[in-house]
Amino acid sequence: MEEQTQRHRPGSPVRSGIPEHGRIPKYYAVKARIAELLDELGEGGTLPTERDLAERYEVSRETVRQALRELLLEGRLRRSGRGTVVAGPKLEQPLSLASYTEGVRRQGRRPGRHLIGLEQFPCPPDVAPGIGAEPGEPVWHLERVLLADDERVGLESTYIRVARAPRLDIDFQPDSSFYGYLRDSLGISFGEADEKLETVLATPREALLIGTPPALPMLLIHRFSRDQDGRPLERVRSLYRGDRFSFTTRLHAE
Amino acid sequence: MEEQTQRHRPGSPVRSGIPEHGRIPKYYAVKARIAELLDELGEGGTLPTERDLAERYEVSRETVRQALRELLLEGRLRRSGRGTVVAGPKLEQPLSLASYTEGVRRQGRRPGRHLIGLEQFPCPPDVAPGIGAEPGEPVWHLERVLLADDERVGLESTYIRVARAPRLDIDFQPDSSFYGYLRDSLGISFGEADEKLETVLATPREALLIGTPPALPMLLIHRFSRDQDGRPLERVRSLYRGDRFSFTTRLHAE
Repeated sequence: MEEQTQRHRPGSPVRSGIPEHGRIPKYYAVKARIAELLDELGEGGTLPTERDLAERYEVSRETVRQALRELLLEGRLRRSGRGTVVAGPKLEQPLSLASYTEGVRRQGRRPGRHLIGLEQFPCPPDVAPGIGAEPGEPVWHLERVLLADDERVGLESTYIRVARAPRLDIDFQPDSSFYGYLRDSLGISFGEADEKLETVLATPREALLIGTPPALPMLLIHRFSRDQDGRPLERVRSLYRGDRFSFTTRLHAE
Repeated sequence: MEEQTQRHRPGSPVRSGIPEHGRIPKYYAVKARIAELLDELGEGGTLPTERDLAERYEVSRETVRQALRELLLEGRLRRSGRGTVVAGPKLEQPLSLASYTEGVRRQGRRPGRHLIGLEQFPCPPDVAPGIGAEPGEPVWHLERVLLADDERVGLESTYIRVARAPRLDIDFQPDSSFYGYLRDSLGISFGEADEKLETVLATPREALLIGTPPALPMLLIHRFSRDQDGRPLERVRSLYRGDRFSFTTRLHAE
């Protein structure tokens, strides 16, 4: 077990980007300087052009481009019309049984949903156990783009037995809260849910629907929820822009 | 609100990668076929060479390379010696106050930790409130690479007041569980913790320490924990390879 005593900048040692045995890559040094510039400009501030930045830092435009690409993927920058502006902080969504709607509202943003499709089909065998269905019985698949202040930020895909919500295609407003509909129209509330979070790359179809570059890292949440009586209820696959969302939770001793 | 009726493969509509209005990119079609091949080969199976794959699917090596790059970033493939093999499933780490050690053991893997540094310095003002310190009082910074079966999978950075663990540099084994040390040697147990999860790109230094490509998406967890008496205890920044980890949690109705 080797034990080293290091001296680096207190408080931010793992963020310094300085390899232990090596040089700082040039693009990374430029990225750090542009990051400082973003702090000065403040949210919504317009970034100078690539050419201006290349001149300012005396590097090639290719080096600037690599730095900007990472800052975009990380959500420090966003495209706006023809320019690039300083992005706001990531939305902090609580990991809870509360709906997307409530989570976004809590942060003073306006939640919205845009219907991609609502369809009914025979339940595939691999979907059946998670939602308490028999293979082949009718299930709904509801797919919606998630919006925050009219910005597309995610894609949500829900499976539920048609027997649990027979009139979903008739009396559910697809731009409203699905959980609100289950509770208010059907008297169904949630008991608990198992979730799994991971980071994935958006597929071309998903990137198109959410309006992101195809290789943007996304946060994917798989949810299996049960109702107040412990019966399997729905399976949800929620994909969130990794540059726009973080998730929070409070853990307690067991 | 537009309402479309779509027909796509039941059970996996959001995974199909087929844009609504557009063609399937060629690299993505190849990626889907290679993904099927991986299922056939099974974990640990060796992938044919780029050249063989290009011939098999009648595409350029550049197209194969793009497909393989995404499969690598997603953790379906991993480099092994000179070849590329089918990776095992991601490790599922529970979001809980249990330590990394316990989480990894539960999955039948051997946890390990490799010390990068243990240092003492005056607490910076922005770190102080989270760990209950006065600015300037001595704090420890403990940085370790996380291992699973000797594979480097993450990087953990912990801040704690020296007053809480005065002999950390003397009687703590840096390859053992820090939480076990706090509990067994100091009688400190955890009450609760606030966590925030997001996806980030590894810095060059982090990529070097964990041994990943610099642009690999990582899962970053910020933790602020309090002890059994509710006093601020430690601040932890844990970075996990996005291609090797997922996190699970069970949510309950409030």
